[in-house]
This record gives sequence, structure tokens and C-alpha cells, in this order.
Amino acid sequence: MLAVAITLLVLDLHIDTGRGRASVAHQLREQWPSFAAYAVSFLVIGVIWVNHHALFSMLAGVDRVLLFLNLVLLMFVATIPFTTQTLAGTLHDGGADARWGVVLYGISNEGMAIGYSLLLRHMLRRQLFYRPVPRDEGRSALRRFGLGLVVYPVVTVLGLFSAPAMLVAYLALTLYYMFEQTQLLPSQPATD
Amino acid sequence: MLAVAITLLVLDLHIDTGRGRASVAHQLREQWPSFAAYAVSFLVIGVIWVNHHALFSMLAGVDRVLLFLNLVLLMFVATIPFTTQTLAGTLHDGGADARWGVVLYGISNEGMAIGYSLLLRHMLRRQLFYRPVPRDEGRSALRRFGLGLVVYPVVTVLGLFSAPAMLVAYLALTLYYMFEQTQLLPSQPATD
Amino acid sequence: MLAVAITLLVLDLHIDTGRGRASVAHQLREQWPSFAAYAVSFLVIGVIWVNHHALFSMLAGVDRVLLFLNLVLLMFVATIPFTTQTLAGTLHDGGADARWGVVLYGISNEGMAIGYSLLLRHMLRRQLFYRPVPRDEGRSALRRFGLGLVVYPVVTVLGLFSAPAMLVAYLALTLYYMFEQTQLLPSQPATD
Amino acid sequence: MLAVAITLLVLDLHIDTGRGRASVAHQLREQWPSFAAYAVSFLVIGVIWVNHHALFSMLAGVDRVLLFLNLVLLMFVATIPFTTQTLAGTLHDGGADARWGVVLYGISNEGMAIGYSLLLRHMLRRQLFYRPVPRDEGRSALRRFGLGLVVYPVVTVLGLFSAPAMLVAYLALTLYYMFEQTQLLPSQPATD
Repeated sequence: MLAVAITLLVLDLHIDTGRGRASVAHQLREQWPSFAAYAVSFLVIGVIWVNHHALFSMLAGVDRVLLFLNLVLLMFVATIPFTTQTLAGTLHDGGADARWGVVLYGISNEGMAIGYSLLLRHMLRRQLFYRPVPRDEGRSALRRFGLGLVVYPVVTVLGLFSAPAMLVAYLALTLYYMFEQTQLLPSQPATD
Repeated sequence: MLAVAITLLVLDLHIDTGRGRASVAHQLREQWPSFAAYAVSFLVIGVIWVNHHALFSMLAGVDRVLLFLNLVLLMFVATIPFTTQTLAGTLHDGGADARWGVVLYGISNEGMAIGYSLLLRHMLRRQLFYRPVPRDEGRSALRRFGLGLVVYPVVTVLGLFSAPAMLVAYLALTLYYMFEQTQLLPSQPATD
Repeated sequence: MLAVAITLLVLDLHIDTGRGRASVAHQLREQWPSFAAYAVSFLVIGVIWVNHHALFSMLAGVDRVLLFLNLVLLMFVATIPFTTQTLAGTLHDGGADARWGVVLYGISNEGMAIGYSLLLRHMLRRQLFYRPVPRDEGRSALRRFGLGLVVYPVVTVLGLFSAPAMLVAYLALTLYYMFEQTQLLPSQPATD
Repeated sequence: MLAVAITLLVLDLHIDTGRGRASVAHQLREQWPSFAAYAVSFLVIGVIWVNHHALFSMLAGVDRVLLFLNLVLLMFVATIPFTTQTLAGTLHDGGADARWGVVLYGISNEGMAIGYSLLLRHMLRRQLFYRPVPRDEGRSALRRFGLGLVVYPVVTVLGLFSAPAMLVAYLALTLYYMFEQTQLLPSQPATD
């Protein structure tokens, strides 16, 4: 499903080639928010995909609560093509509505962070992993992954003042989530 | 395929950011049916996905009739992004056509319930599971999963009077299907 | 990929709920070709999906030519959401262009039949299956699956006179391909 | 994800069947760039899919850098439905903007070639394969796969003079990448 959501992002890119339109060069310049938002959202979904896949490959079993929390997480991730499009559209428009684009985008990301944290906490509590996870290790993982819970709202407030700065901050956070873990992962990362 | 259908729901969400449009705040308020219907339909497809995957993971073999019934089931589930959009559109519009949105949405769900019941009945009759399922257990499973057959039409009639009440009822039914079974499921729930 | 193509069919269904539109009841009546074509195309793709999956699960290895023929087959199947939409649109329109809708739909199906036959012939010639397939058995399979090569053009000509008759004929052919084989298939039919 | 991107290409095909439109025959003639670009892009994505899948099936493990490079590669491949549409639209339009369509399409392909080469180089350097790959063999593979790095810009310049010649050149390059390797591949090519 994450594979589908990440690919649907491309539907947010569009150059008008009909009659009476602005030149393509002009449209490309005007639509920089679409291209920047595409790249940032692609990495955001890509990184949750990688981490989600790694997390599930460590489970010995799943219960109904886990599957439900997983659906809630995916429900927020699946909104990202929509909030990305809205963000790019309102930034392109340049008016007061850009704030709404920033806030909606923040809600997608914060919802994703909350879903991921609840999922991880549930897995740790019910000890659903193949190997027992020591209490300290679990708490540390929760803290590291839970960083977004606090940072996304801050980044969203930043975005109310400067959208480009916000996109850079999202990018930085994504790279943090990408490289925060260094051990080898299973060889089939489902990322095709 | 269920992974694709659930993700296509996001295409039903759209904020107009072109010139001469209403403010984003106004559009968000007006489009509450789209957001409510997105959340309900996401859980509806999500739960059939979870149960469908669990069901198929218990099969020792499949026959042609099963594959055909499965296609019929999927054909109804795949219409949900369409009927969700129509439901949200007609509710937003507020006129007499809201009834049609409610009825079409009911058809998607009832078709899904009929397909699932026929599929389960066929699996039980031909004993396609890894372990033999006692007659009583099978009949009980059919009854529990078949609840929707009776309840969806009732919920649809309810929707003719109050669409919000209908959405809440769908949500309740979804949670029932989510948590009706409590045993552990296979660790790879395909829900990524 | 077939899972994606089959789900994209739903994008061909659309009820206009904006201002100044015809009533939903009227639209539903007018758009019968869309709903009929959706159901027929869903089964067409569904059946190729089932047979394609079964075929590949019997292979011991694949070579480059096979992968290339497979891409050509998929290229035609992937056009079905497009030709289905065109067929429904031209039938709805009712003018002389309905012939073009019928012909394009026929091209999708004939291309699929040619691709499948070339694929099967290549597999048999290079003996890529787990168990050796006797010459007679292989020739018989080619003949049975190759039926569409001859029948699709006939059905397309039929469609030039009566589109509903054509849709019924496609449906019949689909059921033939669905039930033509009766042996048990592998338990994970990838059809979720 | 490649399975989704390749299937989304069909959304670039569209025949207008509304009132006051040109005849379907006229539209089909006018839209030859859409059909040609669909076929070329389908094979371009199909071949990267086949090679990507084969590459990953030879890995003993993956690390974070590999997953990140993989995301960058996929980010460019996922733009192909967009740049294909823009290419076809600007060619159909026939004006000076056709150059932009050609350049954007070239960027998608060059980005893909760079991503693939970086990925392969990283795998070879960190020796992530099941069996040790001799230095010579690795360097030779890098050279053969890296051909696109040099050829795509040349083909793009060619496209500034003749778009049809460019499409033929892309097709030739795709066939080169398809058949450049002749050994047997794993039997489940994920290409369904």
C-alpha cells in the first residue's frame, strides 16, 4: 500500500499542454513548489516504508489491535498525496491560504508519527518480536522514533513563516529517520 | 489489489487551489463528507483486507470456483472509491440525490458481504483449509461474518434519514469485524 | 501489475455531483455502458491474472525472451482501463464513433491473446516448466488458450452491429477461460 | 512500486467522448505521440523493473545507504508517467515547447541511469551479494549498465531535432538493456 501511495505522488505533477496555456518554461518556474513537495513527500513515504517493512519483518506474530493501529497509521500516510498537492497548490497560489496547506501537510505527518509510535509501543508491550527486547532498548527505540511527535508541530509552525525552510526541515528529519539505524536489514526490502 | 483500492480512496480528496475559488478553510468545512467518508471507507477496505488475507493464509488449496467468487468479491470492493466519492459528492450537494449516494454505497458494501459469505461457504463445503473445520465451527463463522448481509441494508435505510448516523453505523460494524476474532494471525499481514 | 490495472478500472466510473448537472438517477441510467464495461473488463483482467499467476508458478526458470514477451503481454493488458473507458464513452455517446470504441477494445484483447500465446509457446519450446510437458499436452494447451486469437476478432465484428451482444460474448469467453482448467492451483493465488 | 508506476502510464491515454469533440478517428491520428510514448515508456520501466528485481534477488543483505540510493532511483522512475505525458502533450502541440518535453523526459531517464549506477557501485563496493564478485566482473557490469549515463544525454539532444528518432533510440537502448544479459534468472520475476 505504501508502494501505491508513494507512486500516486506523481499525479500531483502536471504541465498543461493545451491551447492558450502559459509556456512550459513559465509553468516549470511557477510550479517549483510541486517539484519540491514531490521530492520531500517521496522521501517521507519512502522512509516510513523502509522502517515499517523492517519493523514488521521482526515480528513473530500480530494481533488484532496491532492490525488496527497499522490501519490508522496507513490511513494518515495515504493522505500524503492529497496534502502534498494542497501544499503545492496553496504555495503556488501564494495567498493567505498557504497556511492551510502547511497545516494540512503537518496533520498528515503528525498523524503518521502518532500511528507509528502507538504501533511500536504496542509491539513492545505485548512482546510480539522474535527475540525479547529489553526494557531499556525498547524505551530508547520509542524515544528515537517518537522524535517526530514533537518536531513535526515545530516544523509546521516554522512553515507558517517560511515554506521553503519547512521543506528543508522535513528533508532533514527524513534523513535522520533514514540513517538513525545502522544494522543490516533483511535482504528483500520490498522496495521495488 | 485491496492495497491499491484502499490507496485510491485518496483521489476522492481534493481542495481547489486555482483562481476564483472559495477559501481553503471554507472548502474544508464544506467537504466534511469527503473526509468522513474517506476515514470510514479506509477502515471498511482495511478490515476486509485483514480478514481476506487471514482467510487465504489458512487454505491448503484453491479451486476455480473459489477464484471466481474471489473475483466477484474484489469487483465490489474495487467500486468503493467510486461509491465513496459519489456518497461524499451527493451529501455535500445536500439535495434529494443524497439518497442515491447512500444507496450506491450500500450496494458496494452489500455486494462485498455477499461475495465474502459465498467465498467462505465454498471454502467450508469443499474443505479447502489446512485443518478440517468442524461443521459447528464453520456454521458459526458463516453466521458471524454473514451479519453484514442483514445489517448493511438496515444501515442503508438508516442513511436515507441521516447520513452521519449511517457513517457511524458503518464504523461500528467495521470495528465489530476487526475485533470479532482474537486469536493470533500470521506475522506477515500483507498490510504494508 | 495486473492487480493495479484491475483496480484502475474504477477510475472509469464517475457520477457528476457538481451544480447544474443531470440528476444522479438520470446519470446512472445513461451510463449503463460504463457499469457493464467495468464488470466485463474486471473479469477479463481477473481471469488473465489468475491464469498468468498459475502459469508462472509452474516455471523452474525464466529467460530474457520470456520476460520480454511478458512485458508485451502486460503492455496490452494495461491498456484495458483506457479502452474500457473509450468503449463506454463512445457507446454512451451513441454516434458513429461507437465503432472505434469497439475496435480499440478488441485491440486490447487481441493483443493480450497474442501475448499470452507467444509466452506459452516460448515456455513450452524451451521447456521452462518444473516437469517436462509432453508434446501433445503442450499443443493442446496452446490450442485451448489460443482460442481467443480467433474469437476476439469475431466478437469485435459482432460488436460493430450490437455492443451489448459483444459484451455478453466477452463475458462468455471469460467464463470459458476461468473454468477451462479444473485441477487444483497453488494456495496463494496472489488475488488479493 | 515499479508495478504501480508502469500501470499509471495508462492514465496518459485519453480519448474525449464528450459533446462538441473531434471524431475519435481524428483524435487517434492526432495523439500518435501519446501511443508511441506509452509503448516506449512501458518498456523503459519494464526493463528497469526486470533488472532491478534480478539485482535485488542476488543480495545477501541491504544497508541503509543502499535503501536510500534505491529511493532516489525510484523517485526518478516514478516521474516517468509525468514526463511521458508532458512529452506526448508538447509533441502533439507541435510548438517550441516540444523541446521542454524532450528535456524533461531525458531528465527522468538520466536520473534513473545515475541512480542505478550508484546503487550497483555501492553493492559492489560493500560486497552485498551472495557470492563474492571479482573486481573485473564488477567493473564490467558497471560499464555495461552505465552506458545509459552517456547515451541518454545524446539521445536527448537527438530529440531536439527529431522526436520520432529519439523514441526509436530509446526503444533500441531498452532492447539493449533487456537482452544484454543471457543467463537464467530466478523463476519468480515479480512481473505480474
